[in-house]
Amino acid sequence: MKDKLNILMFSGEFDKALAALILADSARSMDLDVSMFFSFWGLFLLREPDSISNADKTQLEKAFGSVTPKGPKELPLSKMNFSGLGKKMLEKMMEDDDAPTLQKLFNAARKKGVQFSVCKLSAEVMGFKKEELIAEAKIMTAQEYLADALSSNIKLFI
Amino acid sequence: MKDKLNILMFSGEFDKALAALILADSARSMDLDVSMFFSFWGLFLLREPDSISNADKTQLEKAFGSVTPKGPKELPLSKMNFSGLGKKMLEKMMEDDDAPTLQKLFNAARKKGVQFSVCKLSAEVMGFKKEELIAEAKIMTAQEYLADALSSNIKLFI
Amino acid sequence: MKDKLNILMFSGEFDKALAALILADSARSMDLDVSMFFSFWGLFLLREPDSISNADKTQLEKAFGSVTPKGPKELPLSKMNFSGLGKKMLEKMMEDDDAPTLQKLFNAARKKGVQFSVCKLSAEVMGFKKEELIAEAKIMTAQEYLADALSSNIKLFI
Repeated sequence: MKDKLNILMFSGEFDKALAALILADSARSMDLDVSMFFSFWGLFLLREPDSISNADKTQLEKAFGSVTPKGPKELPLSKMNFSGLGKKMLEKMMEDDDAPTLQKLFNAARKKGVQFSVCKLSAEVMGFKKEELIAEAKIMTAQEYLADALSSNIKLFI
Repeated sequence: MKDKLNILMFSGEFDKALAALILADSARSMDLDVSMFFSFWGLFLLREPDSISNADKTQLEKAFGSVTPKGPKELPLSKMNFSGLGKKMLEKMMEDDDAPTLQKLFNAARKKGVQFSVCKLSAEVMGFKKEELIAEAKIMTAQEYLADALSSNIKLFI
Repeated sequence: MKDKLNILMFSGEFDKALAALILADSARSMDLDVSMFFSFWGLFLLREPDSISNADKTQLEKAFGSVTPKGPKELPLSKMNFSGLGKKMLEKMMEDDDAPTLQKLFNAARKKGVQFSVCKLSAEVMGFKKEELIAEAKIMTAQEYLADALSSNIKLFI
């Protein structure tokens, strides 16, 4: 059995998503298996901006869905965001160093076979439907996450 | 020996406490052992609102104790709290989906035999006395936490 | 082989640095090996205030370097910072209990042989040169971090 990296992605911020995806991509290039389980604010990264819909949602779910980030492009910084200015600065600094963008890291993770799963309870509470998230994301319970974590060598809560 | 989940609970926020307790309750229902070690802001969750006292505290400890959350009900959201409005929205959304409340998850964890412990240094610095915290919380040093983590299969810092 | 504690230090805040260094020092006093890998905001802790330079930096890197914390003394609290007032209160409460300061914990970690490493990509993007960081900090890639984590018993993301 291969070594495995397991990330519980609780946070929905640009910098934390960067960190998680750099680890995921690096682990795949070392031929480790990688599972990422998205819960709470982490779900924002997996939203498909073009598939967002209000069908079958409560008023609160509609409001929540419309004010929260839709996919990787809209994630804010966890610190020094300054209404997006800090994030723009950081992105420019990354570009100056030819560092990969969040979108590229995310695409690479999807192409390299990182396993994406979504916390069932979080998706239900936030009103995010399976069709609104990236197609390969599997719905999983906390118990299934724990079972997967038990079989992983590195487990991180981000 | 049973598999064990070990959580170092550093954060004192509603959403992070939810995540931690969902994991703890899920792990117990899979018959894993569960230890939760509360340090820093994490101690807020363990405060017993009815047992809070100013006896034998410095002025700073009294001030700190009075402005910080007293038990699960008062924990704020880590994001989008908006003076409690965001938290109310999230709680309503959870209720709409019949998701268990933080208080219920906490009660379940206590009933199901999750082991609660408190960082000795944090309790001393913040001036929280053992009698002000839930009765079963054991005082532990960082070294005792590490020894417990070494014997656990999943270790998370939340 | 010895048991090992591995910390990925992503955060750049006083309270999280305190928690990480208390764990690192405690682990060393139990004779565990300890590795700390600093990425993103975590790099702030490793900056040597007296070695900071603008040589060979872009305008953005200079601006970023000048507004961000320079070493352990300048790290803010993650909560209740109130422009530094909350941090001063917490430091006073720590002093009242004879708790070690962040600087002392950091010095102890350096003296006790904690291995410090710095994320190569983070240092490049932020424009922090090796000469501006503590001398013993090794530059490491995410892959090297993962290899080190695989050989560690406790892995935490802080």
